[in-house]
Amino acid sequence: MAMTEPLVITDKNQMRQWSRSMRAQGKTIGLVPTMGYLHEGHLSLVREAHQRTHVIVVSIYVNPGQFAPTEDLSTYPSDFSGDIKKLNSVPGGVHVVFHPHNLYDYGAGKEERIEKEKEKKGDGDVSCLDNSGLGHETWIKVHNLEKGMCGKSRPIFFRGVATVVAKLFNIVEPDIAFFGKKDYQQWRIIQRMVRDLDFGIEVVGSEIVRDADGLALSSRNVYLSPELRTQALSINQSLYQAKRLAENGEANSIKLRDSVVHSIEEAGGKIDYVEVVDQENLEAVEETIVRPVVFCIAAWFGKVRLIDNMEMISV
Amino acid sequence: MAMTEPLVITDKNQMRQWSRSMRAQGKTIGLVPTMGYLHEGHLSLVREAHQRTHVIVVSIYVNPGQFAPTEDLSTYPSDFSGDIKKLNSVPGGVHVVFHPHNLYDYGAGKEERIEKEKEKKGDGDVSCLDNSGLGHETWIKVHNLEKGMCGKSRPIFFRGVATVVAKLFNIVEPDIAFFGKKDYQQWRIIQRMVRDLDFGIEVVGSEIVRDADGLALSSRNVYLSPELRTQALSINQSLYQAKRLAENGEANSIKLRDSVVHSIEEAGGKIDYVEVVDQENLEAVEETIVRPVVFCIAAWFGKVRLIDNMEMISV
Repeated sequence: MAMTEPLVITDKNQMRQWSRSMRAQGKTIGLVPTMGYLHEGHLSLVREAHQRTHVIVVSIYVNPGQFAPTEDLSTYPSDFSGDIKKLNSVPGGVHVVFHPHNLYDYGAGKEERIEKEKEKKGDGDVSCLDNSGLGHETWIKVHNLEKGMCGKSRPIFFRGVATVVAKLFNIVEPDIAFFGKKDYQQWRIIQRMVRDLDFGIEVVGSEIVRDADGLALSSRNVYLSPELRTQALSINQSLYQAKRLAENGEANSIKLRDSVVHSIEEAGGKIDYVEVVDQENLEAVEETIVRPVVFCIAAWFGKVRLIDNMEMISV
Repeated sequence: MAMTEPLVITDKNQMRQWSRSMRAQGKTIGLVPTMGYLHEGHLSLVREAHQRTHVIVVSIYVNPGQFAPTEDLSTYPSDFSGDIKKLNSVPGGVHVVFHPHNLYDYGAGKEERIEKEKEKKGDGDVSCLDNSGLGHETWIKVHNLEKGMCGKSRPIFFRGVATVVAKLFNIVEPDIAFFGKKDYQQWRIIQRMVRDLDFGIEVVGSEIVRDADGLALSSRNVYLSPELRTQALSINQSLYQAKRLAENGEANSIKLRDSVVHSIEEAGGKIDYVEVVDQENLEAVEETIVRPVVFCIAAWFGKVRLIDNMEMISV
């Protein structure tokens, strides 16, 4: 399908209207939610969407609701015109780029609310302690799946992700939504949310896309100096090493985990977590691996926090 | 529109298919969510839905997710065939009665999950301490609006309500949903959830329907002995009394509140709460009333907990 530039929509209602008009024509809608600064990983999701749906919406929105005040919201990289070019480079392009200015802006009374929330601070309710619009007070939590790993080091992160994805689902009303498995815990949380809340949407997880040197693509890779980048390769190298060990018969998850920790630390990384968890419920698998597991890693290289993972089906 | 018996649908997917086929025909869908044991209050919602939408779905589902283990889930009254008769008595009837057996049943592995959750109990996570299916772990909270009033005496109630309503919205995909203002806090919470999560749904609140003696209709009224029912009239009588006092110039919310408390206690009721709150954000209005407020009451008469409220626009 030859395509011109995508339609850029910034308004929620216009977005929903577009989707409903497509659905009324019998077309299925694919949604690829992103925070922009697109890379080949995102484009692989668009390609997958072309296989599965008639029309494709890519959302570009850096969601303040998932950043804690200490995190890198204000410096998160962006390049909107570059993103559009990259999307146009995919055969077939995309039909809509949904690029809202603020998904939490409820108009009148915002100033007053900000003052109010400031007064309230310190009451222990984390609903105030994020960067979303201050009139927003509805949050979705997937209680068990979000407890471990990234949920431990980023307590409001998955609440913010689940909530903004629900918003995007309700605005775009897609048939299928496409997520990368690099954010493995996020992917499982969204799947569970969709099941638990009965969204009429299929959630697809796509394989991790890696650079030639094996590093999983991430918008944050741009912050790595050449030296840090070399160090960061220890993440994927240690994962491949663990996979090989497992294939050669090592079924003790603690030994496999220790080999990964050792390699990353030796390279100069600072571990946030390395965990061997059940692929479905993300609970830690200790000792012998008898179910499909996934190795999940988060580690710091300088000021850059990277995540990566690898599924191991059979041990 | 002359109608025969409504179509009774118990399966989620069949329900969504029906709605989508209606929407494809350009029809708008009204949803009246209920827990059954219908009374004139519910029927007034159906009549309002006839004014606003082409086709009407009434859901009948006693939601275990909103009952604490100590509450009256197992004894909540039901009369499905009576409900159908009542719905048929409304001119135009209704098109679908959505009557799922269990909205939290995710099939395989339930027994295993029950065992697991039992092991986990006592970890302080309230997500285990409700009556929903034990594999369910996604909850929606409207943080500020649910803090006071019924949310205080029933800590998991509104989380359960918001979550099941989101499920029903995702299954039925209505254009407009109709709620009674008798559950004032619930109505405002659902409105806020719809705004905060960008559901493409309008939420209508309908006026309270009262019996000839003034008692607000409730499925729980059936539990009142004649004597308790007489006592219970103090709720609405005290509300009308407060309204008259306010109309005659009394703008001190504490005085108005005290008059209500006094009347109910004198009649033999036990107060759960009597509050004068802002109609929008439900925050307590103390001293002089200068905004539109609503008087909200919950009180026990014997073992029956009743709620009622009255909006006061101008004081």
